[in-house]
Amino acid sequence: MTMNPTSVASGANALRATCANALRVLAMDAVQAANSGHPGMPMGMADIAEALWRHHLKHDPADPQWMDRDRFVVSNGHGSMLLYALLHLSGYALPMAELKRFRQLHSLTPGHPEVGVTPGVETTTGPLGQGIANAVGMALAEKLLADEFNRPGHAVVDHRTYVFLGDGCLMEGLSHEACSLAGTWGLRKLVAFYDDNGISIDGDVKGWFGDDTPGRFEAYGWTVIRAVDGHDFDALDRAIAAAHASEKPVLICCRTRIGQGSPNRAGTAKAHGEALGAAEIALTREALGWTAAPFEIPAPVAQAWSALARGAAAHGEWRERFAAYERAYPDLARELLRRTRPAAGLSEETEAALATACADAERLRANVATRKASQDVLQEVGPATPELLGGSADLTGSNLTDWKGHRPLKGQGTGNHVHYGVREFGMAAIMNGVMLHGGFRPFGGTFLTFSDYARNGVRMSALMKLPVVYVFTHDSIGLGEDGPTHQPVEHASSLRLIPNVDVWRPADATETAVAWRETLRRTDGPGCLLLTRQALPHAGDGTRRLDAIARGAYVLRRPAGERVALLASGSEVGVALAAAELLAADGIAARVVSVPCMDVFERQDATYRRHIVPRHLVRIAIEAGSTGLWWKFVGEDGDVIGIDRFGESAPASELFRLFGITADRVAQRARSLLAGETSRTTDAAPALADR
Amino acid sequence: MTMNPTSVASGANALRATCANALRVLAMDAVQAANSGHPGMPMGMADIAEALWRHHLKHDPADPQWMDRDRFVVSNGHGSMLLYALLHLSGYALPMAELKRFRQLHSLTPGHPEVGVTPGVETTTGPLGQGIANAVGMALAEKLLADEFNRPGHAVVDHRTYVFLGDGCLMEGLSHEACSLAGTWGLRKLVAFYDDNGISIDGDVKGWFGDDTPGRFEAYGWTVIRAVDGHDFDALDRAIAAAHASEKPVLICCRTRIGQGSPNRAGTAKAHGEALGAAEIALTREALGWTAAPFEIPAPVAQAWSALARGAAAHGEWRERFAAYERAYPDLARELLRRTRPAAGLSEETEAALATACADAERLRANVATRKASQDVLQEVGPATPELLGGSADLTGSNLTDWKGHRPLKGQGTGNHVHYGVREFGMAAIMNGVMLHGGFRPFGGTFLTFSDYARNGVRMSALMKLPVVYVFTHDSIGLGEDGPTHQPVEHASSLRLIPNVDVWRPADATETAVAWRETLRRTDGPGCLLLTRQALPHAGDGTRRLDAIARGAYVLRRPAGERVALLASGSEVGVALAAAELLAADGIAARVVSVPCMDVFERQDATYRRHIVPRHLVRIAIEAGSTGLWWKFVGEDGDVIGIDRFGESAPASELFRLFGITADRVAQRARSLLAGETSRTTDAAPALADR
Repeated sequence: MTMNPTSVASGANALRATCANALRVLAMDAVQAANSGHPGMPMGMADIAEALWRHHLKHDPADPQWMDRDRFVVSNGHGSMLLYALLHLSGYALPMAELKRFRQLHSLTPGHPEVGVTPGVETTTGPLGQGIANAVGMALAEKLLADEFNRPGHAVVDHRTYVFLGDGCLMEGLSHEACSLAGTWGLRKLVAFYDDNGISIDGDVKGWFGDDTPGRFEAYGWTVIRAVDGHDFDALDRAIAAAHASEKPVLICCRTRIGQGSPNRAGTAKAHGEALGAAEIALTREALGWTAAPFEIPAPVAQAWSALARGAAAHGEWRERFAAYERAYPDLARELLRRTRPAAGLSEETEAALATACADAERLRANVATRKASQDVLQEVGPATPELLGGSADLTGSNLTDWKGHRPLKGQGTGNHVHYGVREFGMAAIMNGVMLHGGFRPFGGTFLTFSDYARNGVRMSALMKLPVVYVFTHDSIGLGEDGPTHQPVEHASSLRLIPNVDVWRPADATETAVAWRETLRRTDGPGCLLLTRQALPHAGDGTRRLDAIARGAYVLRRPAGERVALLASGSEVGVALAAAELLAADGIAARVVSVPCMDVFERQDATYRRHIVPRHLVRIAIEAGSTGLWWKFVGEDGDVIGIDRFGESAPASELFRLFGITADRVAQRARSLLAGETSRTTDAAPALADR
Repeated sequence: MTMNPTSVASGANALRATCANALRVLAMDAVQAANSGHPGMPMGMADIAEALWRHHLKHDPADPQWMDRDRFVVSNGHGSMLLYALLHLSGYALPMAELKRFRQLHSLTPGHPEVGVTPGVETTTGPLGQGIANAVGMALAEKLLADEFNRPGHAVVDHRTYVFLGDGCLMEGLSHEACSLAGTWGLRKLVAFYDDNGISIDGDVKGWFGDDTPGRFEAYGWTVIRAVDGHDFDALDRAIAAAHASEKPVLICCRTRIGQGSPNRAGTAKAHGEALGAAEIALTREALGWTAAPFEIPAPVAQAWSALARGAAAHGEWRERFAAYERAYPDLARELLRRTRPAAGLSEETEAALATACADAERLRANVATRKASQDVLQEVGPATPELLGGSADLTGSNLTDWKGHRPLKGQGTGNHVHYGVREFGMAAIMNGVMLHGGFRPFGGTFLTFSDYARNGVRMSALMKLPVVYVFTHDSIGLGEDGPTHQPVEHASSLRLIPNVDVWRPADATETAVAWRETLRRTDGPGCLLLTRQALPHAGDGTRRLDAIARGAYVLRRPAGERVALLASGSEVGVALAAAELLAADGIAARVVSVPCMDVFERQDATYRRHIVPRHLVRIAIEAGSTGLWWKFVGEDGDVIGIDRFGESAPASELFRLFGITADRVAQRARSLLAGETSRTTDAAPALADR
């Protein structure tokens, strides 16, 4: 392959080269101004970006929310300046002043692309591998939405998802999970451009990345377009045309030079992540024949880049199409608009189903596993909520994420319950993509322990304010015989630590129903439902209980003459109630506080918090997991009964005894504390001989 | 492919079929007795296990620690009963009584295989994908150790690593990371048996796993032996012989039936994870022609299975080989024995290097980033510690995990600093495998935020009590412009929550050196070193400081008439010291407590803890991250100044001001608390307008 030096392009492609160079110069100048950032990728992928954005991408800079726009994802998110340059030049509401403030506080041009901050940015990227997985989710959503809403002659949902990605994304395991699914699902409107520049931060990738990537993607069932010169516009055009003709997802392998245009840095790892410096920038300008000052774009170039007219035309054409659709299928059109409205709330039908689920749970007072109670909620909510897109990472029958009448999504079919296979991280990142696309409300299940595998995906849901729902079952040693590899200990608390995640650990069927209701009502962040394998007793009742649960913590038992407060979540609420009975028999009145969601409780006002957890009571918290976060609520004179070591393989009931998560032990601790003994030193710890 | 019905095998293979059936029956009977477990995989892979274990595996049941044994990993760890049956029948110290206690409390036969619990179990598996990655680490360790110690005619390190794995492992992204590296590294002694039974928990895998797996592994540079009948002993023998002749890692694709032998469950998802039930067990016994009672093995079968004689012979032959090596290369032999001794401590040379590093740091009082201070430690320790196997997930120049004179491990070469590529989880699980193998002390680096990607690998280090070292740099908003995707907030605390992980967040070069010392001295669990990108001032000195740091928390500043205690870790220790100076100017005496390792501090006796953090002082903790875990130390009348929301993209110094991690704010809070104002309500919070 011979490289086509961008600087000497001529004839019909001269303008294209100049347009691409505008991206290069903006990127290098912005990184230089910030003295921070990554010029290498933007300069290397500038020609590809020109080919895609100026000639193929369907978008309307005047309306970044246009539902039927093509989606564009920079999975190698450190190349953010490429995206900002594209958005600015295309005509999005991203003025040059913001490019000058690249990576400065509260600019519209943060270090990595952030959805919700910059108009036209479709997803937040940077953590490698997640962008391509988000894109798979977007393409899945497009396919499902088209299948559901399009009618013959009325293709109102018909757009592509384009991704830029690099070696880093391809090394990450997540790319395997997501791209395997894209192939299995046959997502033919997904087109990924692989920036095959042979360089990652540590240098020449051959030393740690020997994959035959085209062969790998063919094994996933993708169309692979090999060995495209990423600096040859004609070759890129041919590749994109071929991609559009494919019936499978497409990987276009583009041979590029990182930092292309920089005489001394191009093709080196040094081009990746630092400013070129004034001298090299001058040399690069010279090599590119670029004479304009930093952050100045010559008028002909600006004109050539503007996508406003083309975007308005495309959008207008679609509006006409949609108007025809609206006339032919008014109900469908209304529903499609409802579904794809940004931050769409729940329908009345869904709210009614949730109300029924809550009322039924409270009325039936069933002793069930909360994972089963969750499925009972889905039996109501599923049929009432067409936007619901459930799923599980190959644990459907254990997570109980399916419901009567659900339609399993397998292979190239459609459906509303996704079999993600054993791919927890892939599931999370794909759900994020589905949510970003719009039209669906995704939720997915796995064992709580394996939330670890998905962890940064959950974090990205939270950072992007996406109300994705995570159903994490088998939430403690209560899972029993599978043993410590499968028993969560630290997971409830460590999920609580992620900002903007609401972690619910309901104590019975009613709390489970309310947890679902509150989680589905969220519009600005994810919820995790931590559910038991084992059956739990109904914990309490009362007409006002539903509202109380929704505040994150509430008093379940409030005897006269209280001296003790027992705080607990989930399966330990029953333990606390039993302990309170034991104490009552000794004449000690104990309040029981259920804490289904510590995160929500912490958002209540101080008066409510003090009302529920009064400082004058001796307080003990009980949770079959890490103790650390509970000290905030019990104070130094209280105690926390939990588990700060790994579990064991044995039947669950034996484990609760072994680890001392019992009413007897709680009652004993309360008596000790009331007798003035200091905490943490006098506890008759259960026999925890380590092996 | 025609299945060879195991029950009608005849001729030379009749005994082999019977031996395989012994595995099947033990597995189904043990699962039945426990009424819990997974019969499907053991019954499906029994013939493969017979072929490998009775005819090829080099091991000595009388000495499970024999250094040159072949390693055997059940990556599909739910098939634990297959492994227990193999170990029992081969002659390991695993009596039948323990098989009867499958999945019972403190048995030697927990639900999933656990290293350190059961003789002969090489690694703890169950979390899918990690076993194969551990195996890659073992094979890497074998290769490196052989390269370092073998001499012509003296192949004292020469063994293979075998892995069983299933569809679940292959769907997990981790398998991509590990197997890509195995191919790049050319680990020719790694042989994986793929249990291609077409079934995962949700059913027929075709609906969610459409990969051409052989094609995928060829793309990694593996030898793939396709379409082997996993129930045909002759075909398996041929495949294993071919594998041994390969110059690359080998994947043997075995077509099997899950639950093979069970007339009604074989080939179904129902065979996977539940007991067959008495009726089906009777039918299976009949189909297999197995008449012995549960947990009884006919003498000829037991005799056929015993590997004691073969193992003793192989081990004896190796002992002779090693004796000859010892005569020829006494120094090498001594060093090899030192390196491969279980739980080998540090050498005198390493201890001396650590002592030098600690003393130098304290003497030089340099203001450096702790990541740089860490590299300074490695400059001392690296050359003195041949067992050290460093590495980074493509961030060598940022993590500063290399040292002068390190030898980079790339491609098929050897070395002592591994370029893992952008594969955080793979790095963790491979390091676990290296540690389990013995001969090396692995450490690896990435950005702290991306500890999320590796999280369950860190957990497995802890569960397996492996003293792997994680170097997590860029440990807070101090990383600056890269923004919230790259800025850790909850990570320090969430790593602290994992049992048996020691998380060090040193405040200066001296604390960094001691953190390395204490982490390297551990023999029973991992350590995480959380290091800054930005320079930090030297925090204090004194001859006794080194010992104090090692206790996890200590008093750095103790003025007369103390009223306030400021607790901090890492980069916030400097903030606390500055705040104490501000308070001193107001006549308020403030103690400063540095808390480099909360985990170690919590293991100190109560007297020491109260001595360092006295209850009578008004206490404020400061850490640029989640606040939750600090309340235990400051009490309800204290306060915690931290960050419970996501970061921002901006220069680091601006971010510390934005988030209020400043001496001014700390001093102001201290004054407020002393004035009797209640915590958390009166704080003049910094302007944190959310976008």
